[in-house]
Amino acid sequence: MSFFRSRWVQPPEDIVELSPTALAPAFRAAGTACGLKASGGTDVGIVVCDEPSAISALLLTRNAAAAAPVRVCRDRCDAGAIRAAVVNSGNANAATGSQGYADAVAMQERTAAAAGLEPASVAVAETGTIGVPLDTASVLDGIDRAAEQLRSGGGEDFSAAIMTTDSGPKRCCVSAGGVTLSAQAKGAGMIEPGFATMLCFVQTDAVVDDPDAALRGAVAGSFERITVDGQMSTNDTVLLQASGTAGVPLPAGLLDAVLLQLALEIVADGEGATRVGRIEVRGAADGVEADRVARAIGNSPLVKTALYGRDPNWGRIAQAAGHALAGIDLPEIGPGQIDADEVGTETAEPELSIDLGRGTGAARLFFSDLTHEYIRINAEYTT
Amino acid sequence: MSFFRSRWVQPPEDIVELSPTALAPAFRAAGTACGLKASGGTDVGIVVCDEPSAISALLLTRNAAAAAPVRVCRDRCDAGAIRAAVVNSGNANAATGSQGYADAVAMQERTAAAAGLEPASVAVAETGTIGVPLDTASVLDGIDRAAEQLRSGGGEDFSAAIMTTDSGPKRCCVSAGGVTLSAQAKGAGMIEPGFATMLCFVQTDAVVDDPDAALRGAVAGSFERITVDGQMSTNDTVLLQASGTAGVPLPAGLLDAVLLQLALEIVADGEGATRVGRIEVRGAADGVEADRVARAIGNSPLVKTALYGRDPNWGRIAQAAGHALAGIDLPEIGPGQIDADEVGTETAEPELSIDLGRGTGAARLFFSDLTHEYIRINAEYTT
Repeated sequence: MSFFRSRWVQPPEDIVELSPTALAPAFRAAGTACGLKASGGTDVGIVVCDEPSAISALLLTRNAAAAAPVRVCRDRCDAGAIRAAVVNSGNANAATGSQGYADAVAMQERTAAAAGLEPASVAVAETGTIGVPLDTASVLDGIDRAAEQLRSGGGEDFSAAIMTTDSGPKRCCVSAGGVTLSAQAKGAGMIEPGFATMLCFVQTDAVVDDPDAALRGAVAGSFERITVDGQMSTNDTVLLQASGTAGVPLPAGLLDAVLLQLALEIVADGEGATRVGRIEVRGAADGVEADRVARAIGNSPLVKTALYGRDPNWGRIAQAAGHALAGIDLPEIGPGQIDADEVGTETAEPELSIDLGRGTGAARLFFSDLTHEYIRINAEYTT
Repeated sequence: MSFFRSRWVQPPEDIVELSPTALAPAFRAAGTACGLKASGGTDVGIVVCDEPSAISALLLTRNAAAAAPVRVCRDRCDAGAIRAAVVNSGNANAATGSQGYADAVAMQERTAAAAGLEPASVAVAETGTIGVPLDTASVLDGIDRAAEQLRSGGGEDFSAAIMTTDSGPKRCCVSAGGVTLSAQAKGAGMIEPGFATMLCFVQTDAVVDDPDAALRGAVAGSFERITVDGQMSTNDTVLLQASGTAGVPLPAGLLDAVLLQLALEIVADGEGATRVGRIEVRGAADGVEADRVARAIGNSPLVKTALYGRDPNWGRIAQAAGHALAGIDLPEIGPGQIDADEVGTETAEPELSIDLGRGTGAARLFFSDLTHEYIRINAEYTT
């Protein structure tokens, strides 16, 4: 099956899909098991760019209870010149206080030493349980072992190292316009990114003049437009690294298409999710209002259970929109303004729309349904 | 069992509980079936105050997609001098356009004629499915029949007429300080009132100098402090009527205690709910921030599933609080600031708290858990 499997993604026309576990030229990666996951699965990984002049962009969660690795990235990283990232799954190292911060710093420094880099050029990301002290000795040992295994074919182990409740890896390696781009993402719950999300690592050999602008633009149309459960994570991190060795720029739309498909995979793999809806809000007073209405609809448990139940219940959409606009004197929202017909079909990607008739503001949001399985996963999961 | 069954409600000391289906002196009520409910159950009701000098207060939903009866109350009622209320369940008459508005006006006028009142002194409330045209002929016929049956013992039929997915009636009649107060409420889903909620009717023979202030004060500490699913209804309505025939004022705390117990019954009867949590937020920068954090916690599907799973998962509380404060530079929220221990016990009313350590702002919220039964109810319910 093609990586670009969503009806909502348009990759560049000349795109070629390579092995999804491959990496862009000049990148090496590895992953190993250090015991954080009870399953014994791969849980610590490293990705490194061998090109000294590589540039990068790093987006981090806006959650005020940001985890230790996010704080370390903010405080101690040169976000525009990241050469390597170290990541573990199984423990988010969030709400772990000063010890957690010291542990994240230790991960950064050990990775830098093992890879022969400055600590400021190493980003740290962690994902998993919140509020549990990190078994740092095991993680540092895992870092040493992973560093010894770094190789261009290490994308498979690296993407395994970042997974938690994901049902499978979310990754690709594609080429277009003379450049290669590889990416690995994870995420299934606690998903409503503020301006970055969960974990996503992107490698390319393209020349990227302004990686921060490129990444922010692509994230604005992808990870910022999704919700699973309306919960902004403490650990969201997106890293773009560009080695520039291809000597040509990124083709228009390539980064956007890859990040949108990855974002949609996260929604489709949302905890307990069976389908993904796209709500289009039009006719809002402005874009901010449109976004507020889109999020109220995509996060409404009544709309999400209707999506699950194949119930084209436009009344719940009207209610959610009205809630988002509470206090505004609005003409009643009627059935002629809402299209929820595809919810009643069996399509995996139904499109919904609402026209508020107030102005030209528009917004879209991709959201999962709310199911029994979400309850089972989250009620039975224990700290 | 006492009506005041929650650990969080303190009624006045001299309170006496009368039959829960009784009404305050000078009030009569009735309820009948007109066919809106597929079950054939009681679905249209009227409550009338026989005292011409009765005064009242009326609070309505702030949802911008407010239903026709709410718009009729806003446009065509003298909110301070309501003598009667007519209500139906089974159809919310929301998102029904100009025909829905005309239907609600017809209900008001038919009730006024049947009870010998001015239309402006009759409030209209409806609850049930959104977006379905009202079978107005049947409702008007039901109004005529109910008007003929108005009696002081009609509280039981009236409270039956307002129920939808409620598992049972929520009502009381109590006396204290020489006055009697009766109340009937309904609500189980689409519950996060803006400043009023679902349907609640309160009758008293007390002298109430400023019913609007009294009602707003009591609602601020009760219906405004609850959430089931974070969904503000299109039809929320609370009506307080005071005949003044007792000649004495309401005892301090009586209205507050009754409305808080009714609000807690709505949370406890939340769709699929098995228990009610109370989150206390302290140490916020101000009350607005505290309220935002409390709602983020009480509406978080991760916190709500943890409440269901008896999992004292303070990390999810930290995450939800951090989300509410996104973008603020905050020291990490640690376990010493959060108490979720009672979530791990079997108590039906666990207390949770979080101290943000930023100031003196405080807020509390009562919220239900999120369970399999919520999914079943809302995924299988069809328009």
